Amino acid sequence: MNGKVVKSIREAISLAGLKDGMTISFHHHLRNGDYVLNLVMEEVARLGIRDLTVNASSLFDIHLPLLDHIQSHVVTGIQTDYMSAALGREISRGAMEKPVQFRTHGGRPSDIALGRTPIDVAFIAAPAADPMGNCSGKYGKSACGSLGYAYPDAMYAKKVVVITDNLVDYPLLDWSIPESYVDYVVCVEEIGNPKGIVSGTTQITRDPVGLVMAQNAAKVIQYSGLLKEGFSFQTGAGGASLAAAKFLKDIMLRQQIQGSFGLGGITGYMVDMLQAGCFRSLLDVQCFDLKAVESIRTDPRHQEISAMHYASPSHRSAVVDSLDVVILGATEIDTDFNVNVHTDSSGCIMGGSGGHSDTAAGAKLAMIIAPMFRARLPIVTDHVTCVSTPGKDIDVLVTQGGIAVNEKNRELKERLTAAGLPVLDIHELKEKAERITGKPRKMPRGERTVAEVISREGTLQDVIYSVPDQD
Amino acid sequence: MNGKVVKSIREAISLAGLKDGMTISFHHHLRNGDYVLNLVMEEVARLGIRDLTVNASSLFDIHLPLLDHIQSHVVTGIQTDYMSAALGREISRGAMEKPVQFRTHGGRPSDIALGRTPIDVAFIAAPAADPMGNCSGKYGKSACGSLGYAYPDAMYAKKVVVITDNLVDYPLLDWSIPESYVDYVVCVEEIGNPKGIVSGTTQITRDPVGLVMAQNAAKVIQYSGLLKEGFSFQTGAGGASLAAAKFLKDIMLRQQIQGSFGLGGITGYMVDMLQAGCFRSLLDVQCFDLKAVESIRTDPRHQEISAMHYASPSHRSAVVDSLDVVILGATEIDTDFNVNVHTDSSGCIMGGSGGHSDTAAGAKLAMIIAPMFRARLPIVTDHVTCVSTPGKDIDVLVTQGGIAVNEKNRELKERLTAAGLPVLDIHELKEKAERITGKPRKMPRGERTVAEVISREGTLQDVIYSVPDQD
Repeated sequence: MNGKVVKSIREAISLAGLKDGMTISFHHHLRNGDYVLNLVMEEVARLGIRDLTVNASSLFDIHLPLLDHIQSHVVTGIQTDYMSAALGREISRGAMEKPVQFRTHGGRPSDIALGRTPIDVAFIAAPAADPMGNCSGKYGKSACGSLGYAYPDAMYAKKVVVITDNLVDYPLLDWSIPESYVDYVVCVEEIGNPKGIVSGTTQITRDPVGLVMAQNAAKVIQYSGLLKEGFSFQTGAGGASLAAAKFLKDIMLRQQIQGSFGLGGITGYMVDMLQAGCFRSLLDVQCFDLKAVESIRTDPRHQEISAMHYASPSHRSAVVDSLDVVILGATEIDTDFNVNVHTDSSGCIMGGSGGHSDTAAGAKLAMIIAPMFRARLPIVTDHVTCVSTPGKDIDVLVTQGGIAVNEKNRELKERLTAAGLPVLDIHELKEKAERITGKPRKMPRGERTVAEVISREGTLQDVIYSVPDQD
Repeated sequence: MNGKVVKSIREAISLAGLKDGMTISFHHHLRNGDYVLNLVMEEVARLGIRDLTVNASSLFDIHLPLLDHIQSHVVTGIQTDYMSAALGREISRGAMEKPVQFRTHGGRPSDIALGRTPIDVAFIAAPAADPMGNCSGKYGKSACGSLGYAYPDAMYAKKVVVITDNLVDYPLLDWSIPESYVDYVVCVEEIGNPKGIVSGTTQITRDPVGLVMAQNAAKVIQYSGLLKEGFSFQTGAGGASLAAAKFLKDIMLRQQIQGSFGLGGITGYMVDMLQAGCFRSLLDVQCFDLKAVESIRTDPRHQEISAMHYASPSHRSAVVDSLDVVILGATEIDTDFNVNVHTDSSGCIMGGSGGHSDTAAGAKLAMIIAPMFRARLPIVTDHVTCVSTPGKDIDVLVTQGGIAVNEKNRELKERLTAAGLPVLDIHELKEKAERITGKPRKMPRGERTVAEVISREGTLQDVIYSVPDQD
């Protein structure tokens, strides 16, 4: 059966009718091991197509060749939810004329579904696919587990190209995306570098400061009133977040509490918690390591969810709406609890919201875990450089030097104070840090807008300015 | 967690904003055991809402109370893919002013997705659901297995109400329809009568005529050139079709052929074939019996597909496009191989296409299996009363008295003739039957159009006239 198989990416691009000025899309489940975006962009450039917008759910250092395509005007627009530092630095220095549009992992599928960010051709890297385009992330040498972020691209793009290095007999079972949405299938040698797709294991922190933060975080959850039968939880893959999950696991096992679900980007630590009985299920929009990939492939309690199901604000509901607690990071947080995860201390782009805003908006308790200062810069500032997540959606900041609770959540403040936890006003926490680091001087910023931060609801939330040395 | 749970169907109808003139929809997975359509219609009538169109994937005798709602002008339009005889008879007698619109199981989701038949409120009977609306057909006292036909309703209706008798803790795992599409959840005592939802076992025929037909059918497949590794197959739940599957199974086991997939409405016989190794997988849009329900719940080789994935002609592809052989029934077939499955010999509506046209159009070999005559009426006529499936999509007619091959498939005719099978011209088959039954007199028909048969592509294919005694 040949089905929809065409002989090359080049042929698929031509058949899909890609033309100057169109928008193409990519998902980021192959993370820093992804070959597909670069392969497609090379062919697009060779075909002489110009002025494209790239809508990618995230961009990593491996996608640095994009800079060449930006310089040659093959790419003139970028829409993404996250951008790693190497690419971010160049964008901040003014590599593009048009500002990058940042969205959230829930806002992206929402805006795609609503037709606000139409996609002409979606390119879907698939670790397994059959000749009609049924495809999955769970099987093959490039297995990445969930393909959650690729669903909106498949469902709403005018043309859909599946690119695989593992073409299997029809029908592929246990598909993520059904053939109903797929126009063309291309088989290539390798869609990615397994070492970059998933890490072998994600590591908890050994840093003493991180461990204190993590212990504080676990205690906040313990005394929040939310840690009871049916509890639900999301945490990131950062070292302190994972350590917090470890301490939380100990508490849940000791108190014999079984949660309903763990959510998110799933790590091996969440799989451990599932297997230990801390949760009844895992809902997985993205796998972070090999243990998560193995689990989603073999354990029916560990289920793939689409980006819409995870976090879309314009669908009837999303799992984030039912979330109890999320642990999130920050590069800065201000005294109004606004959080920055887009730029570093010099104002350079080095991240993005991902699911930060979505989970913060949905969760009953949105916790920021961060050290009081990094490289002699206090984490708490008067005004964040960039509002990634608005303070109204953040409940608590946990540091090694104290815990600050947002005034909007008085019940939490009372509970934590009653439990004897080191609760401080966020202004006190700021001053406490500044007594150690000194008052940081305000970083100058450039004049150009290099990026727009679009809220999950689709409105302009903030802008990111160029860094001054390049103005 | 209350989530989207509202206290009654009445409240859900009000919240969904149902008003005069709107369209509501239902799926038919609970078949002749479905309570949900009647429950909803009772409440609609009590609320004084009028002039509704009911879009139901199929209608059964249990839905006879619809006639009252038609008489009282609560319902003034019906769109369906199949209508059983008791309801069909009344429609044929002129119960409705506006003609019923018949579609196919693939044309229905296609026309819904294209916006040709918009749905205001979809009511989805769900054997299991959680408070946010994630739902499944596989679990609970009213388990029906696949919910394939409910997908388009959930995805495209303006409002979606899930009605369940088995509300489970959030999150329900292994959902068919995710919460992303669901507005309200209602919990009722019983959504159906298990005895009518699925039969205990479906039975192969013991009738000697049926067994001869079935043996001929199996031989046609055996010598068609299609029965080889990777073979794919669909058959109905009728006695002769099941007997054909039984004979086919024996051939496949003897010849050690493993097929790729069995498709369809799935019966226990198809499950037997899966378990015996005749197929690598089953793709299931609807379960016909308890064995199929048990299998789809427990065997990962047995997968649920949506109506779009099954048969939509306007999606990028559907499984029917990859189908090798389908065995179908007929009430009449004419010398151009046009098939009628909508009306009986008196012209009364007693069925509908279901997936007939879709699988015939997609399969490499579309076979009609039918006795030469029923109740002294030959199966082959000059012109069918109603073209349910156009002759261009039918390859062969198999009867106990001979096999007629459509001229469009010369290769098949040559293969079957070479294999020594009793191949006759379809005109000869007609005359052979008429020598036994006599030439039937042409049935008079009424003047009114009581139904329109819409092709899977969405065009008017034929009309059904009233029966004369009521004109």
